[in-house]
Formats: sequence, structure tokens, C-alpha cells
Amino acid sequence: MSLNTFGHLFRVTTWGESHGPALGATVDGCPPGVEIDEATLQHWLDRRKPGQNKYTTQRREPDAVRILSGVFEGRTTGTPVQLMIENTDQRSKDYGEIAERFRPGHADITYWQKYGIRDYRGGGRSSARETAARVAAGGLARAALAALAPEVKITGYMVQMGRLKADRDRFDLAEVAQNPFWCPDAAAAAIWAEHLDELRKSGNSVGAVVEVVASGVPAGLGAPIYGKLDTDLAAAMMSINAVKGVEIGEGMAAAELTGLENADEIFMGNDGKPLFSSNHAGGILGGISTGQDVVVRFAVKPTSSILSPRRTIGVSGVESEIVTKGRHDPCVGIRAVPVGEAMMACVILDHLLLDRGQTGGLRGPIGGT
Amino acid sequence: MSLNTFGHLFRVTTWGESHGPALGATVDGCPPGVEIDEATLQHWLDRRKPGQNKYTTQRREPDAVRILSGVFEGRTTGTPVQLMIENTDQRSKDYGEIAERFRPGHADITYWQKYGIRDYRGGGRSSARETAARVAAGGLARAALAALAPEVKITGYMVQMGRLKADRDRFDLAEVAQNPFWCPDAAAAAIWAEHLDELRKSGNSVGAVVEVVASGVPAGLGAPIYGKLDTDLAAAMMSINAVKGVEIGEGMAAAELTGLENADEIFMGNDGKPLFSSNHAGGILGGISTGQDVVVRFAVKPTSSILSPRRTIGVSGVESEIVTKGRHDPCVGIRAVPVGEAMMACVILDHLLLDRGQTGGLRGPIGGT
Amino acid sequence: MSLNTFGHLFRVTTWGESHGPALGATVDGCPPGVEIDEATLQHWLDRRKPGQNKYTTQRREPDAVRILSGVFEGRTTGTPVQLMIENTDQRSKDYGEIAERFRPGHADITYWQKYGIRDYRGGGRSSARETAARVAAGGLARAALAALAPEVKITGYMVQMGRLKADRDRFDLAEVAQNPFWCPDAAAAAIWAEHLDELRKSGNSVGAVVEVVASGVPAGLGAPIYGKLDTDLAAAMMSINAVKGVEIGEGMAAAELTGLENADEIFMGNDGKPLFSSNHAGGILGGISTGQDVVVRFAVKPTSSILSPRRTIGVSGVESEIVTKGRHDPCVGIRAVPVGEAMMACVILDHLLLDRGQTGGLRGPIGGT
Amino acid sequence: MSLNTFGHLFRVTTWGESHGPALGATVDGCPPGVEIDEATLQHWLDRRKPGQNKYTTQRREPDAVRILSGVFEGRTTGTPVQLMIENTDQRSKDYGEIAERFRPGHADITYWQKYGIRDYRGGGRSSARETAARVAAGGLARAALAALAPEVKITGYMVQMGRLKADRDRFDLAEVAQNPFWCPDAAAAAIWAEHLDELRKSGNSVGAVVEVVASGVPAGLGAPIYGKLDTDLAAAMMSINAVKGVEIGEGMAAAELTGLENADEIFMGNDGKPLFSSNHAGGILGGISTGQDVVVRFAVKPTSSILSPRRTIGVSGVESEIVTKGRHDPCVGIRAVPVGEAMMACVILDHLLLDRGQTGGLRGPIGGT
Repeated sequence: MSLNTFGHLFRVTTWGESHGPALGATVDGCPPGVEIDEATLQHWLDRRKPGQNKYTTQRREPDAVRILSGVFEGRTTGTPVQLMIENTDQRSKDYGEIAERFRPGHADITYWQKYGIRDYRGGGRSSARETAARVAAGGLARAALAALAPEVKITGYMVQMGRLKADRDRFDLAEVAQNPFWCPDAAAAAIWAEHLDELRKSGNSVGAVVEVVASGVPAGLGAPIYGKLDTDLAAAMMSINAVKGVEIGEGMAAAELTGLENADEIFMGNDGKPLFSSNHAGGILGGISTGQDVVVRFAVKPTSSILSPRRTIGVSGVESEIVTKGRHDPCVGIRAVPVGEAMMACVILDHLLLDRGQTGGLRGPIGGT
Repeated sequence: MSLNTFGHLFRVTTWGESHGPALGATVDGCPPGVEIDEATLQHWLDRRKPGQNKYTTQRREPDAVRILSGVFEGRTTGTPVQLMIENTDQRSKDYGEIAERFRPGHADITYWQKYGIRDYRGGGRSSARETAARVAAGGLARAALAALAPEVKITGYMVQMGRLKADRDRFDLAEVAQNPFWCPDAAAAAIWAEHLDELRKSGNSVGAVVEVVASGVPAGLGAPIYGKLDTDLAAAMMSINAVKGVEIGEGMAAAELTGLENADEIFMGNDGKPLFSSNHAGGILGGISTGQDVVVRFAVKPTSSILSPRRTIGVSGVESEIVTKGRHDPCVGIRAVPVGEAMMACVILDHLLLDRGQTGGLRGPIGGT
Repeated sequence: MSLNTFGHLFRVTTWGESHGPALGATVDGCPPGVEIDEATLQHWLDRRKPGQNKYTTQRREPDAVRILSGVFEGRTTGTPVQLMIENTDQRSKDYGEIAERFRPGHADITYWQKYGIRDYRGGGRSSARETAARVAAGGLARAALAALAPEVKITGYMVQMGRLKADRDRFDLAEVAQNPFWCPDAAAAAIWAEHLDELRKSGNSVGAVVEVVASGVPAGLGAPIYGKLDTDLAAAMMSINAVKGVEIGEGMAAAELTGLENADEIFMGNDGKPLFSSNHAGGILGGISTGQDVVVRFAVKPTSSILSPRRTIGVSGVESEIVTKGRHDPCVGIRAVPVGEAMMACVILDHLLLDRGQTGGLRGPIGGT
Repeated sequence: MSLNTFGHLFRVTTWGESHGPALGATVDGCPPGVEIDEATLQHWLDRRKPGQNKYTTQRREPDAVRILSGVFEGRTTGTPVQLMIENTDQRSKDYGEIAERFRPGHADITYWQKYGIRDYRGGGRSSARETAARVAAGGLARAALAALAPEVKITGYMVQMGRLKADRDRFDLAEVAQNPFWCPDAAAAAIWAEHLDELRKSGNSVGAVVEVVASGVPAGLGAPIYGKLDTDLAAAMMSINAVKGVEIGEGMAAAELTGLENADEIFMGNDGKPLFSSNHAGGILGGISTGQDVVVRFAVKPTSSILSPRRTIGVSGVESEIVTKGRHDPCVGIRAVPVGEAMMACVILDHLLLDRGQTGGLRGPIGGT
């Protein structure tokens, strides 16, 4: 991973700002022969699209993705795939009032500190709009997975909004698409709706926890020591805007367990593969997949662009108050769900390719059993 | 980060297994002219060294580090620095009984699944011994930081053992080196000692949470979008053995905050730099350092090698029970403290160099104020 | 360098095919604050543009470059710069006849062997059209060099067409832009014109040698052992379509020299810098620039798409003859001149940034003279 | 390729200086299960070893290689392989006289310019001793090729010394190991022997051209656009000490050919694979292997350390004369032969692995013919 690129062999470079003419993803290293078209990618982008309900920003972008290269007659050619999304609803005048002042909790001050650049029109490169490009790239990764490892399924959902946790005993993945929060617990979703309404009206925002699960991941993916599957997942998720924590399996709670509690016991499955009694490990041991579900969670902080006044300074150093009007998500965690799924798809595909390259197809002693 | 290397410009490749002749770190990209010698590196290694008290593995290794290249007359030359540590106390016979059976919660099964290799002598490449090489490399990174950014200070400590949390109101960094747990809360350390004794006697183990803080980090470090400072820290910490969760600033708890609570207000400091009212962000916004303390926490799962019997299978697929005798840490979190510090040092130095390279020394409009 | 990206810190990823909707370059790592606009880039693209005289392909493309990201109010922001060129004159029907048959000396057979893809419309990704994206990226590199190291000047020219060499005694760089061959020897240019006319009429093509010189390059650029300045230049030039050989300084002729002849003697210049009696080394010793002119030459093979019949096979394996009609350059070496310049600009800038990052601003013993 | 590492998936990092305690190669990404031991590696190192006849440096090093990691019970484990060679015959006093003065044509001046370091004991990192580590890594690459693609054979030989070219009509690969010059033309070898004797006695040195051929390379290796097989070969060979030019197939002479002459005609072989009438391309089209012999040549400049006096300056800038006594090869091209072979082995293996990773095993339309 480096700068604006992530991935070892399936390399995604996103580019573009919230208020420029376009943004996109340059995807290098997609295998040839993968069936893909713009409609398939659009399906994934539409899930992330803002302005779909009152809980997400009212900025309305069609977010129409175009494939500019790397695909011929409906299949990838093995050359770079350029995915472009034009920015159509930029309405930068909304940002006029905050052109001068930094938003507490926002990256505008650090971009200024690093680059000396003040793109006063909006979040620029640090805007969550960048994640549209990730979702497009993730759509391509899913298509490649469908060809190479069709048993892999990736599902993301929200498990916590503010202090309100969904109840795992009520989890039903069929519910995820039925509420605006991608919540697998219908009862929690109803409570969250009320809570978020209240926060939104009071000009406030709130954080969330998102969980992404990949099932059907073959055992053996991950490249120790520093290209571990969990290392790359941690990096991928932490790179998403507003994420402050990442967990694999038990996550931070692993600290509370004893060795007896934590050790997933191993049995032989009927299919000749190991069968584990539990999955505290989140499907990864020593950085390598076990064949169990790969389970990742990440915490998204509350949106920093809020209507409530906060103390701040401006580019000239003068102290003042700031209120961010614009159109902002009261809970960016919601839109982070498809983004987390996209990152999971990219990482799993990348490690699938890396594993083939790294081992050269060899498993254990040549000529061995 | 890729495979056995981490870092963009300060690139550390660790090599070696727990029971081979030696292990070490090949460090490429250390600036020239940095004062360093073996004694300085040894200081850091000695902090991590096993066998120092009853709470860490009784394996006794002098862990003497040798500098084989890249240093001439006490200064780095700008060429690769090879740091080698010979393995002297391998005592592989201890592992005899577990040669055939996988340890639940251990990486031996996934290495088998990936590589078809069974290094029955010990953890092989997945052993925590690999972290000795990280600590050596971290010592070199500290020396380079001392030359390039002497105001940077890095301190790690344990904040939680099992369910027992240290009390932040009692934190005193002077206490950290005074107890075997690197605990800044002397009262907690006393309680932990009892708790761990009990666990050790019962053949069990326990997890922990480690916090690492870097103060004096200049604003502007971090390379969005995928080489963010927090992205690289998350990867660095998650790559440490047994780590299952990583947090920046508020971490997972950021999900529970509202926008009002989370936004660190900004004022002007007397030194003409921004002054923040709080540090929920952990010193990083949009992946770039703010100039505040950089705060990272990570959870270490309990040691999987325990004396209590667990159900498992062997390489031939036969189900059985396993008890791991050998010499193992009841709480590997303890020895993870110097390792977390080393990773922090490497990442901060790497981003300091990267920032100089990436911006070419430019900050904002050329010829601008 | 990897796959479709080159550069360490100034990273250029080109994308796009000859007959897709667009092609371009995603440039990551350009320092912030560099003055740039589309007109400046267009200047460089116009030099490479086909259809300008009878010696280059009659395909007429405006090759208008658009900056889609990374530039705000006329200056780079430090985020990825997306440079897009739309394909407007694709006229793919010309290729109808050769849809089935491989062109001897062309990459269509190896792309088929590797990817199983047959983009029968033209060269696809292997087309020289890809070099338009390099020239655009090179224009950005030149702008960054103008800000960071304004003394660097880069000039390319053709020194040989077929067996006809230009005469170094007649070299006049002012002549380079005065003839269609970028030839510094006016007399040679006249002879080449006749020669190429003849070849073109007979349906044949011819190779060429291009030389690119960078003056004003500071001493100390280059990262031994495998990121040497000459290593990266060799890779950069060899990556250009149709290039089969690369030379630094004396190049292949260095084999013919004795140590006495080859050793450039060293004196002290009036500016306190070393002064060399000659430049057999081409400005690079041990992979690091000496401060002299950096001199690179490369050989371009003759265009493989010719009107003369050659024996070949088709995708189904049937043997036949092929004649390539289409619109092709009789001497692709001509258009390789601006491409070579662009690669030189990218490599010099990249190493300038890398040197700042790698040494962290340190030169020799800290506190030393 | 970056800094002291080369390769995409089979990554070789060499480290060490001519007069430090040891040097070596850290090889990451070797597939698991490859049979290897120290004796096999030693075989390749012995071919490069100095002091074997009067035509190479009289420095006598056993150059004994030790495997410190990554191999267990005679097979690679998939983890980093550390190959170490101790320096035993350092005799640095020989260099006393030149401690202050730069050798014209040598890298000592540029290392000083870049790093401010003066390792007066010898060539330091720029010494040809570094190539011993490459040969060791190349030995491992050969072992992996033997497992993955046993049909690949790699042979290097010298084709030119000074102005004296070997005669291709007399080439007999069986002769290569029969003379001290790795020359396939026995008659030329005899003439070279006389010529080199004379040069050596007169305190002079001479350049050479080395050719390396890989046969049995499968079609489809190479990753356009910037990870082309020829791009990586050019970089690999140019990174060898003293190399100033690299050619693929016809090389620089390709400039002299017409399209008719250069286009290797294609027929169908009896094995259902394409059969080419000639190999002007050197086995690579568009950066991808055709299945023909891969042919690379490179020019090695004459040794800069000569007994004849040359004008130079010292570190303090004073002008003087220099004569390099020490023990130096009169024709370093000779010892470059096994080094060129090693680089070829590493690049071919790397691309074999990369191809598996990149295509994910897919070739053309999934489900297609």
C-alpha cells in the first residue's frame, strides 16, 4: 500500500476531488477474461449513492460510472481498467461560509498543514466522495471473485449506532437491505431511525460500527509477516474516511479472554477440512485465512461537519466559531457499509492472486502427498 | 507494505525463524550519517528480552544483536543495515509432543494450509521471536529520529490485562519501567501480578491492551489516501503477533460519540501553531498528523500455547487433545510493549522521510507566504 | 516499477487502449504547489502528435489533454493528477483485414498468448498511442522540475536512421526543431528525408537511434543498488514501444575502451565542484549522478506494420500472408523523441524526490562540514 | 525495483560492503517446497569466485554461503531465505594510498557526493563484491525454476573483449566452461588470453560484452507496460556494476534494419505452437515472451581501478594523480558472466510467479476455448 494506491497485485489507485470535474479508480492487475459491464458496477454504486433517504447527504449525484479502458466486448483484457465518475452536483457555493475556517475534527486543517492547499469548495481529496471510486473498484473485484472463487460471499452491515447496539440474537441478514441502516436487526433499525432523526434535527451527528464478513474464503490466503490478511484488512478499513478503529474476530475484546476461552478448538469436517468449534480468530491465524468466515469490524467517528457551533481558527490564524451548513450525513457510518464491503472484496481478491503468484502453485514439498 | 517488508522509504525486512541459526532485519533506506552502534540497539532489545521475570517465557536468549553492514565508523552510510541476532537457546526437544498436533488458536495450522510446511520445532516464522528483529530495527529508527526530529518521543505501556483496566487518573509514566508489566498505574500493576500468577499456575493465559504514544510528531506527516499515517500504523500494529484490534485516538469508542463531543476544538497557540482543546482524533485527521500526540492502542489475544488441554487435530487429520508444555508467556501483551514502540518509531520515521520526498520540500504555493 | 506504473515517488500509471474511448495517465506523488495548466501540457503533446507530416501516421487525433484532478486554481494540490486524452479518430474498420492474422514483429501474438485477448481493432494496449499519456505525464514532470530544479534542461533528438548516422561534428541543437526528424544535423536530415520517402513508397519501414540529454542534473541522484539512476533510465527507455537497446554514455562501445581511455579525469572547477575532462560515463557513476550531462541513447526497431507481405499465422493457427494497410509510421523512432524526453523528465524528477526522502536532507556525518 | 531490492514477487535485497564483516541476500517470495542446500548454492558462487586464474582479482575469498533462514530439512518454507557470505580476506591496508583520492571512473566520488561517506577501505557498497550476493540469490532462483519450469535453461558467455569479437560461426556452448573467459569460441579465447596478458602487464584494463540466453521460457511472461520482461531485464543488467548498455535480441543494431528484415515470420510448429523463422526480437514482443530464446547482451566498461596514473582530486578538493594498486580484475566482464546469468534466473522466475498471480490462472475468456 502506498499513497493513493492499495493492493499488491490487484492495485487500485483512486483519484479525484469532491468538486473537480470527475473522480475515479485506475485498477491495474485485474485478471483477463472477467465478465464486467457498467450496469454491474452501477448496481454497487447505487447502494452507496447519497440522497436516497433523509439519513444521508442530500447532495444528489447520479454517480454514473464509465469504463474507459481495460474492457473489450464485455470482458477484462488484463490491462488497466479506468473507472470514471463525473461530478455533476457540485454546488460549491454552499461552502462559501466555511472557505476560511477549519472544521474541528475535519481534515481540512491537516491538508493545509501538509500541502499548503485550501480547496475551500469542499472536502477536496479528503471528502467521502472518494469512496465512490472504491465502490466501483470493489464491484470489479467482486466480478473477478465470481470468476475465480465463486464461493466467496461478502456482506456488510451496521451493528452499532452511537451507544445503541444491534442484538446478535436478532440478526437476520435478509433484513440488511430492508432498512436505511443496513442493519440486520429490524428492531434496532427502528430505534436507530428515531435516534438519528433527533440528532439530525439538533444539528448533531453520531458514530457507528460496521461489520463486514467474507464467507467461502479459501484457507491459506495471507502473506506473513507484513502482508498478512489481517494487516491488509486493517489498513484497508483504516484508510476509509472517519474510521478510528479496526477489529478482526474478537477484536479489542480479545484482551479480555483467557487462552482457554479464546482457542477455537479444531475437529475434522466431513469434507476432510478442519472444522472449528468457534471463530474468536475471525477466520485468520498468523495472518493466514483458516477457511472460516473472515470477520472485520470498524468504528466510524461522527461526521465533523455539523450545524452546532464549535470553536476554531481560520487560515489566517484568527479564532472564531464555525457552523457547517452544506449537506452532510448525520451518520457517515451508514454509507461506509458498501465501502467496507468493497475494501473486503479488493483485499480478498488481491490475496487470492498474491497466493497464486507467491506459491507459484506449489503447496508443500514438491512431489509430496 | 508487502510480504516480509514494511515501510515506504525506511524499509524493514525481517527474516528468520524461532529455531533456525539466526534471525534479523534488513533495513534499507536509513538516512546516512546517523550515529548508531550495537550497544544502543542492545538497549532496546534487552527491554524485550524473554526470561527476565516469571511473567515471560523462560527461554533465555542473550539476543545479542550484530550490525553486519551499512554502518562505518559509528555512522550509517545510507546503504542497507543488516541486523542479525543468533538463536542460541533453541531447545527444540521441548516441542516433541506437539510436533504432530496443531495448537488451537495458533498459526501452525494455517502455515500448514498455505505452505504445506510443518516446522515442528516451534513457531517457526510465526513465533514471537520474529519481533526481536523489529525491536532492533526500531532502535535504528529511534536513532534516525534523534538526528532528524529530536523532539519526537515514543512511549508504550500496558493499559489493560484481561478484564482489569489501569486507571488513567493514576497514570504516571515514571512508573512504566518500575513494574514487569510496563504499567503506568502502580496499583493496577500489583493487582495484575496476582492475577497473572494465578492464571499461570492454572495453565492458562490472558490477553492485554497496549497503548503507544508518540509526542513531538510534526504536523503534516501522512500520505493520503492509502498511505495515511493511521493506515500505516494500523497495519504495523496488526502485523504484530496475536494482535486482533487497533485503535487510533478514541478508537472503537468513537462510534459512541456525537459530532459535538468528538470535534476537538481549535485555538491558536502562543507558538503560532494550532492548539486543540482535546485529542479524540489521536493526533491524526484525514490520515495526516496534527502536531498533537499520536495515540495508538492494540489488543493482544491470550497466548495460544497453554497447559490446559484443548481438542484439536493432527497433520494426518486425527482428532485428539493437546497440551502445550514448552516455555510460553502467560501474557504476550507484556512483551508486545517494546514491539509496539518499535513499530511506532519505524512508521513515524518512514513518514518523515516520505513527506520530505513526496513534497520535495514544497509546502503550498511556491513563492507563497 | 511494476506493471502499468513506473516511478518510486513520482508514480505514473498509464491506462487506455488505441481504440477505446480514452487513455491517460494517473500521476501520484507530484509535489504540491507546482504551476500547471492544460495549455502547458498540450504544448508537449503537440510535439508528439501524429499526422503532422508525411513521415508520421496519418491518423489525426487532436490529442487534447484534460486535467481531471489534482490541480486547483492553476497549481497542483499534492493529490493524484488525472490526465485524460479522448480517442476521437479511431477508424477501426481499417484493421478489418488483419483482425484474424498476427503481424510478424508485433505484440498482437504475445498479448494473445498471455491474455487470450484479441483486440482486433488495433494495437490495443500495445499501441504507440499509449505514449501520448507518457508525454502528458512528462509535461507535468517538467513543470515540477521547473519549480524544484530549474537548471535541469532535457533535450532529445534522433542520431541515426537505419544505417545513416548524423555527424556529431555538425550537431546544432537549434536545428532539432527545424526538421521533421528532430535531427541536430541539418545535412543528415535532408538525406534521411529522401531515404524515408523511398522506404515509405516501397511499403517498408526502418529503425532509428534516439539520444536524450539532461543537463543541470544535480550530483547525488540515484539510489544504489537496484534503484540506480541508470537502472531506472534503462527500464524507462526499454519500456517504450519498439525499443530494443539502451545505452548510458559510451554504452555498448564502452566494451571497446581500455581503462585508460574510459576513465574521465577529475579536476576542481571554479565553482568548487568537480570538473571532468570527458563524459564517457554519461553523467552516472555507480548509479549516481556526477553533475555532468546525463546521456541516454536507445534503439527503436522498424515499425512492424508494413505494406510488404510477410508469412504469418492466424488465431486459429492457419498459415498465410499478411500485409498491414492501416496508417502507420514508417519510422516510429521519430515520434519516440518526445517520449524519450518525457521518460527522462519523469525519472530525473522521481530521483530528485527520492533523494530528498531517502537522505532525509542529511548529507554525510551530521554536524560534519 | 527499488533501492536495494529487485523483483516483483521473488524479491531479492542484497546488503553488505566489500570490507564489512559479511554481505548477503535477503530473498523474499521464494515458493515453498523448493529443494535447496548450501552445496548447491556454493556451486554457483564458485563459478564467480575471484582468484581462480591470473585474469581475475587475486583477492582470495572462500565465498562460503550460509543459509540462515527460510529452509527446513532441505526445502524452502515460503518464508524469507537469508543467504550470508562472510568477508574473510579484507586486507584493507592495500587501499591506504587511495583513501583520500577519488578514482576516475569509479563510484567513490558519487557516493561521497550523495552520502558524504568515505569508506576508504575499498569499494564499499559499490564494490563488485556485492554481486556475490546476487549469484547466491540466482542459485536459489535456478532451484525454484527447476521445480516450476524445468525446461528453462540459462547460459551466459562473453562475446567480445575490447575490440575483439568472438565469431558466432565458431560458437560451441561446450567450450564456455573450458576457458577462463566463458567464451564459446575457443579460437577467440586464445587470442583474448594474449591480449589481456598484455593489458594487465601494462597496468591497463578493458571492457567486454556478455550475452545471456534463456531457453525454454514459456510464452506469455512479462507484464506490460512498465513491468515488461525486457524492461525488467534491462534494469536487472544495468544494475550490475560497470554495465553501460543493454540489448535485447538485435539490440542497438535493430535501428539499422528495415521492417522487412526485422519481422520474424511466423509458422505453425508441429507441437501446435508458433514457430518463428528468426529471432530478431530476442524472444520478446511487446514486453511479453514469445516462447523463443530470450536473448540479452550487456556491455561492461573497463575496470576503473588501474595501475596507470590518472588525474584526479581528493576529498579536500586538491588535484593530484592516482594509481590504484590493490588487487583488481583487468576485465571485470569475465566475472560478470555468472552475475548476468543470476539476474536472468531471478527475472524469469519472478515473471513466472507474477504471471500466475496476475492472471490468476486465467487465460482468455473464462469458459472460452
